[in-house]
Amino acid sequence: MKIAIVMGSISDLEVVKKGINILKEFDVDFEVRILSAHRTPIEALNFSKNAENEFDVIIGAAGKAAHLPGVIASHTILPVIGLPIKSSTLDGLDSLLSIVQMPKGIPVATVALNGSENAALLAIQIMSLKYEVLKDKLKIYREKMREDVLKQDKELVYNL
Amino acid sequence: MKIAIVMGSISDLEVVKKGINILKEFDVDFEVRILSAHRTPIEALNFSKNAENEFDVIIGAAGKAAHLPGVIASHTILPVIGLPIKSSTLDGLDSLLSIVQMPKGIPVATVALNGSENAALLAIQIMSLKYEVLKDKLKIYREKMREDVLKQDKELVYNL
Amino acid sequence: MKIAIVMGSISDLEVVKKGINILKEFDVDFEVRILSAHRTPIEALNFSKNAENEFDVIIGAAGKAAHLPGVIASHTILPVIGLPIKSSTLDGLDSLLSIVQMPKGIPVATVALNGSENAALLAIQIMSLKYEVLKDKLKIYREKMREDVLKQDKELVYNL
Amino acid sequence: MKIAIVMGSISDLEVVKKGINILKEFDVDFEVRILSAHRTPIEALNFSKNAENEFDVIIGAAGKAAHLPGVIASHTILPVIGLPIKSSTLDGLDSLLSIVQMPKGIPVATVALNGSENAALLAIQIMSLKYEVLKDKLKIYREKMREDVLKQDKELVYNL
Amino acid sequence: MKIAIVMGSISDLEVVKKGINILKEFDVDFEVRILSAHRTPIEALNFSKNAENEFDVIIGAAGKAAHLPGVIASHTILPVIGLPIKSSTLDGLDSLLSIVQMPKGIPVATVALNGSENAALLAIQIMSLKYEVLKDKLKIYREKMREDVLKQDKELVYNL
Amino acid sequence: MKIAIVMGSISDLEVVKKGINILKEFDVDFEVRILSAHRTPIEALNFSKNAENEFDVIIGAAGKAAHLPGVIASHTILPVIGLPIKSSTLDGLDSLLSIVQMPKGIPVATVALNGSENAALLAIQIMSLKYEVLKDKLKIYREKMREDVLKQDKELVYNL
Amino acid sequence: MKIAIVMGSISDLEVVKKGINILKEFDVDFEVRILSAHRTPIEALNFSKNAENEFDVIIGAAGKAAHLPGVIASHTILPVIGLPIKSSTLDGLDSLLSIVQMPKGIPVATVALNGSENAALLAIQIMSLKYEVLKDKLKIYREKMREDVLKQDKELVYNL
Amino acid sequence: MKIAIVMGSISDLEVVKKGINILKEFDVDFEVRILSAHRTPIEALNFSKNAENEFDVIIGAAGKAAHLPGVIASHTILPVIGLPIKSSTLDGLDSLLSIVQMPKGIPVATVALNGSENAALLAIQIMSLKYEVLKDKLKIYREKMREDVLKQDKELVYNL
Repeated sequence: MKIAIVMGSISDLEVVKKGINILKEFDVDFEVRILSAHRTPIEALNFSKNAENEFDVIIGAAGKAAHLPGVIASHTILPVIGLPIKSSTLDGLDSLLSIVQMPKGIPVATVALNGSENAALLAIQIMSLKYEVLKDKLKIYREKMREDVLKQDKELVYNL
Repeated sequence: MKIAIVMGSISDLEVVKKGINILKEFDVDFEVRILSAHRTPIEALNFSKNAENEFDVIIGAAGKAAHLPGVIASHTILPVIGLPIKSSTLDGLDSLLSIVQMPKGIPVATVALNGSENAALLAIQIMSLKYEVLKDKLKIYREKMREDVLKQDKELVYNL
Repeated sequence: MKIAIVMGSISDLEVVKKGINILKEFDVDFEVRILSAHRTPIEALNFSKNAENEFDVIIGAAGKAAHLPGVIASHTILPVIGLPIKSSTLDGLDSLLSIVQMPKGIPVATVALNGSENAALLAIQIMSLKYEVLKDKLKIYREKMREDVLKQDKELVYNL
Repeated sequence: MKIAIVMGSISDLEVVKKGINILKEFDVDFEVRILSAHRTPIEALNFSKNAENEFDVIIGAAGKAAHLPGVIASHTILPVIGLPIKSSTLDGLDSLLSIVQMPKGIPVATVALNGSENAALLAIQIMSLKYEVLKDKLKIYREKMREDVLKQDKELVYNL
Repeated sequence: MKIAIVMGSISDLEVVKKGINILKEFDVDFEVRILSAHRTPIEALNFSKNAENEFDVIIGAAGKAAHLPGVIASHTILPVIGLPIKSSTLDGLDSLLSIVQMPKGIPVATVALNGSENAALLAIQIMSLKYEVLKDKLKIYREKMREDVLKQDKELVYNL
Repeated sequence: MKIAIVMGSISDLEVVKKGINILKEFDVDFEVRILSAHRTPIEALNFSKNAENEFDVIIGAAGKAAHLPGVIASHTILPVIGLPIKSSTLDGLDSLLSIVQMPKGIPVATVALNGSENAALLAIQIMSLKYEVLKDKLKIYREKMREDVLKQDKELVYNL
Repeated sequence: MKIAIVMGSISDLEVVKKGINILKEFDVDFEVRILSAHRTPIEALNFSKNAENEFDVIIGAAGKAAHLPGVIASHTILPVIGLPIKSSTLDGLDSLLSIVQMPKGIPVATVALNGSENAALLAIQIMSLKYEVLKDKLKIYREKMREDVLKQDKELVYNL
Repeated sequence: MKIAIVMGSISDLEVVKKGINILKEFDVDFEVRILSAHRTPIEALNFSKNAENEFDVIIGAAGKAAHLPGVIASHTILPVIGLPIKSSTLDGLDSLLSIVQMPKGIPVATVALNGSENAALLAIQIMSLKYEVLKDKLKIYREKMREDVLKQDKELVYNL
């Protein structure tokens, strides 16, 4: 039961960390890597080729012409989650489209721009097919989210 | 081992069918439903609430302000794949953003606009965590895709 | 004579408050709630189902894949006003399209991005069909707006 | 109990007609007008100024730099519904933004691009505040929509 | 020889001022007004109707659903220059499209987003058809711009 | 009293013709040229340099990275009207932005995508500063447009 | 003196052919390949790794999340020209951004959407650094283009 | 062996400098110029006309309606690299489209928005066709990039 989180650049770490915290909260084992589809293509290939032996799901985070998740997905049949990172131009539209619009045959499960927590939660939901224990944790997490909203709702009167 | 494919409108069927053919090719059991997040919200809720008992993954296909996948995802911890359908205005940007930009807590695994085959393949990749048999089928499918491209590449000389 | 303002997250409050001030200025009774289409879907449903008994109009404020107004609208025949909130990516285009592009059958009356005052004013204009007293207040408000612009116009010379 | 439908050009009629059919189905009295914000500004002004005496709600349909609904709204406190029409360039984004992004003070209740039926339904939902009879009709209409989807869902098996 | 500069809101003044400085530099008489297409529609109409008697060209500056230049243009045959102002959402796309996409019959001469200097220069170029003196001034201005660039080019070595 | 219409490619002629018909209707002398900013840059330069001697206004029509109007404008102080032509990709956004977003110093008076009639009308409005006779013609034209709309409005009953 | 043209799918051939015709016209040797970044990643890698021995420039054509040119560029220091192909959704914006927005370190020389001729011409211009004979051919080609426009300009009178 | 870097405005220097540093690192001779397509069109023309005698490649940097690279390209058969600069509105979409969407016949090799380093690297890759020494430098540069990523990857554990 292990997730790989691969980011294309150290600058993505700030966003990626939010998802890591989710994985820690769920007590899911994970490994974080920096691998660039363009600057370390061979290492990215080797990582992806062998991922099936060690991991259940891969999260690929990248910005701009964000090829990393698609490139990883082309070398493994593991589910690959694409996390588009907003960079300094075009408000993230480039990252989003480069990840989600994958051509027929090689899907990437794309989440929202900078949606690091959702990438982690989606990975856990996927892994829960195999690891039943995660189902209960997910239900507790959802219940906690629900209660947080209800508490905010109740306390709202003090904010008005 | 069963996938649910839910579409928001009968008009989505033409696109959805391409994914169904993939599921048939992989011999994966599936159920297709028409459920609207807005016109049959209670039925959509009930379906989603109970989906965990019967299905492993849900594919939600919808166009325009495409809330269906997100609404389903809010009622189940099963992985939900969002399939944005291009409709007659805005070239599909509305469907895509309405599905992929889910807020923190409830992810939807989004594929490309009209990417029906990829929605099916992603569902199978996710299910392969639990059902090992699918892994081999996926590898065979990928090998076949690879060979198709190589064959096209070889025959290209006759098309020039 | 009562308006419900529902927001998807406490982070929307800053924008929502500007509309609340309008409602106070018009002396219209209102209730503010935090209800998430995705994190508290059952509470959102129950609220919407029963809204007709207590409210005349509902304002739903949400960002990103902003499903809340549409989800509320699917459970009530009250007019639902959608207030798209600009969040940190895509400059608000996601919120706007997710709210305004509702499919046939369930409309959401959408106002401008972060247009909190206009959401409130639209609610009041709608309620004025039933409560004649609001018509005079609206005319006075418009006259005041007009005078403010004329005053600015007159004083402009000092700003040049 | 009367709705005004104003379109900016005869070319908008094809889209507008779908909403007219809804109004007929609900047995709501209506008047259809062609008035251009730019080519007949005085007539548009006079119509808007006097609308309060005759109508409960106004639907304004227009394309491109679609000023008509906003211009009407500036002359009346009646709720004005904006119906953006997709024309031959920019896929409707111009019409949508020109209508929905109204500045503070004068709201336009915007529906989806070419969302003629929803413009009519929103008008009816708004009028139902004053005319209780419409509430029952709306509920019956929604129930019928629901049944149509359920029927399609049931018959889907024959389409696969 | 007089230009009218009309802005929709006092908040547009900061951008508008840059164009005013150009007019001063060219010694062209001008009048600056705040008139809102939506909050002071009658005043905007009256101003536009009578503009022909006093002005040669009108510059209309507005943001969001920027109807002001189009509304002015519908009441006068004077050339109307549209100056789209970038506001806090959508990066100015709404202002630009609302101004430039005018339907057939009533043109607005649109310049770049926040292109206040160009609005002024265009007004002067237009007026130079009638007032020959402006032609020489324009040529001197262009020559000065040219020399400024050449000087920057020459001094660039010190900036490297 | 003469207008130059320059288009970047013979393929623009279909759109340009609609504006030519307006010029004929107004009995304004004109010359139509095909000059490419990129394929005949010297000819475009020479034309622009000498335009002041023969023409009052220049209309530049171009698609894609539509540099023609801006390039012409850089060589003349005559008012240059930019007519963006929609081509086969990006729905015209490229043409529009390439023309309207001119940097400080050299304005191009941009009209709507494919807005050929408005380019012609704007040219006439600009020339009317110098040629008073055009003012009356413009007023008659506007009155005719007004009457056309009113007639359509009156006859609408037969179309419903 | 040889160019490689690689396309991601046989469906790109129609667009690619236009560039091939240019290469034939210039008598430049070329090889056309179908290689998918995602379906044949190893073959794409091997091709790119060895390209330096056989080719001077590579043209990579792809649509949607168009990773092919970037993936090729990551394995070779040859100049790689990216040719974005417009597919059935989003009007080509996805292909364009996926190709042009390459992160720091690995550039792709991007041309216009479906700009197949320009991809070929750019390849020839690049190769002309090494093969002087191409310079003359390019000048003759440009002169021919110029004459074509001038001829169209001269004959225009017959088209009006 | 010399590169020309031309920018449209001194304000582009900050971005351009990053590319200059790359050229210095590769020990490639270069000349930096400020030349405006619109404010110094004749100087830009003369520079471009004569560029072939002195330079191997030209980099043209510009923002907004960024005509400079295209204008240069129309006067030379040297490869012209377009570097779109993001300015204060539209998030750079205007610069990008104005540069990349060049019409048939005159290509501009476009890199990412603000992609100054990539413009320089592309220039060097192009020049390496002629100057073999650059090939080794490029391979060393790539190897260094690769090692930097691998080092970041190895040190990542300390950042978590």
